[in-house]
Amino acid sequence: MNARWFQEVIVVETPGKGFTNITAQVAAVVARSKIEMGQCLVFVRHTSASLIIQENADAAVLRDLERWLGDLVPEARAWEHDDEGRDDMPAHARSAVTKTSETIPIVEGRLALGTWQAIYLWEHRHRAHERELIVQLSGASG
Amino acid sequence: MNARWFQEVIVVETPGKGFTNITAQVAAVVARSKIEMGQCLVFVRHTSASLIIQENADAAVLRDLERWLGDLVPEARAWEHDDEGRDDMPAHARSAVTKTSETIPIVEGRLALGTWQAIYLWEHRHRAHERELIVQLSGASG
Amino acid sequence: MNARWFQEVIVVETPGKGFTNITAQVAAVVARSKIEMGQCLVFVRHTSASLIIQENADAAVLRDLERWLGDLVPEARAWEHDDEGRDDMPAHARSAVTKTSETIPIVEGRLALGTWQAIYLWEHRHRAHERELIVQLSGASG
Repeated sequence: MNARWFQEVIVVETPGKGFTNITAQVAAVVARSKIEMGQCLVFVRHTSASLIIQENADAAVLRDLERWLGDLVPEARAWEHDDEGRDDMPAHARSAVTKTSETIPIVEGRLALGTWQAIYLWEHRHRAHERELIVQLSGASG
Repeated sequence: MNARWFQEVIVVETPGKGFTNITAQVAAVVARSKIEMGQCLVFVRHTSASLIIQENADAAVLRDLERWLGDLVPEARAWEHDDEGRDDMPAHARSAVTKTSETIPIVEGRLALGTWQAIYLWEHRHRAHERELIVQLSGASG
Repeated sequence: MNARWFQEVIVVETPGKGFTNITAQVAAVVARSKIEMGQCLVFVRHTSASLIIQENADAAVLRDLERWLGDLVPEARAWEHDDEGRDDMPAHARSAVTKTSETIPIVEGRLALGTWQAIYLWEHRHRAHERELIVQLSGASG
């Protein structure tokens, strides 16, 4: 058993507010790492986009999540920090209650997600953004 | 110092909505791993149950958390995704703002939880479920 | 490449409710670890204080987060658990939807935070507290 660390930066182009399924991109890094057993950290280098592991089957789940979180963090609130756009401070609050880092076990060389799980990058700003994530793996190979 | 990775699947039978203290089950995996210093990842392979590290002393804390989160994510809301039961979409939203993965340091061969901390699996569906978790350890032994 | 694990306890004196930027303290542990590539776990050993990675530039962001979360978890609610002070149960609920553990990749011997990111300890009790955190590193050195 050889100890191994491996990392790659991935860049995700978001279309603006909403979810981008990044599972295939993360899985590709896992495959390139040659790690058989260990863990995969995904880290977002931003404070107005975040991560979430959620249902991959019915797109209505994502639409409901978007609407519910939108109501929980209203743009219309009297935010003190408002010089970067009405959607900027809500984006920070939405990130605060979702995830900046998420870690998934690696079993037999693959992400050990459940049948219904996918990894999403959640863009919280209205306009499209280029987001940088680090995928950091550690584990045992061969 | 020997690098070591170790993993086990644990299955938790939940009694329906509420908390199951899984600290002892996770601690047993840590003991079997023989890792002295490192970290313990707990990962839930579901999107309608989640993890939380919370107070282990007064059960009223858990009842308050359940009621508060129930108000934050009302079943009575007009959810678009409603064909798997009134409690399914709220369960996804509740999972989104709690934890799918949680990582605890291992110090001197044990979970380094604070005095008042326990690890709970939080079931968000009304009926009982069998939930699968992966406990993934990495660290140095002997 | 040598596998390496390293851990230190850090104690943070909070001034009561609000944010303490702990990035420099965590970065100092990373430097002492001599790890070049890997990951840094930060873990709070309490259930009424938590972690958050957020914007480090405009202090108004932190004031807005504090006010927004204060409204989301009102002290005035009829909490069952109220014998440790009006702010204790809200502190547990605030911790539940923020982070007990956070993991940051290490790239070229440093925390790979984004330009605008800082790591904060978020105190949820009114009075000052001494909070214990564990910084746990793993990775490859020189």
